Amino acid sequence: MGGFALTTPTQTDLNLRAVQLLNEDAEKIAQLISVQLDNLTLPKCPLYEEVLDTQMFGLSREIDFAVRAGLITREQGQQIIHDLERKLADLYAKILP
Amino acid sequence: MGGFALTTPTQTDLNLRAVQLLNEDAEKIAQLISVQLDNLTLPKCPLYEEVLDTQMFGLSREIDFAVRAGLITREQGQQIIHDLERKLADLYAKILP
Repeated sequence: MGGFALTTPTQTDLNLRAVQLLNEDAEKIAQLISVQLDNLTLPKCPLYEEVLDTQMFGLSREIDFAVRAGLITREQGQQIIHDLERKLADLYAKILP
Repeated sequence: MGGFALTTPTQTDLNLRAVQLLNEDAEKIAQLISVQLDNLTLPKCPLYEEVLDTQMFGLSREIDFAVRAGLITREQGQQIIHDLERKLADLYAKILP
């Protein structure tokens, strides 16, 4: 079974890898927004909102796919979005009085 | 090993499932565009182009994730996009003279 395990990832491997990839993507969005907030003074700028909407849509499509492919649970997906939203709220809090 | 195989999908199972899910998503985009083309006379309408761009972006994020998660090859991903683009070109050909 050792050789089998080496060539075929277990469900746990796949789950961990999928969660890691999705968290990296969420982190990239937080970084992008952080850079934007540093360079734009107004987070209400339509361009800023459009970039965020597009990126959040892309991440939600990835997460939805990962859930349907059986790689992660729906709860894990919601947690990734929730963590990102909290991170973004922290970024705003630093900018806005 | 029978029980193990039952609970742990093989790489082939995962690949087939991922390709099937992505093709279903591509098909949904083709359907959406088909309905839009039936109801809008101008495929150059900015709203139409925005919907298509957004949907293609979402699909490309799903495919990119599936490649990075090791579920499909990059070539399989490109094939799904290519098939969808050909389908959309066929739809336009029916509308435009």
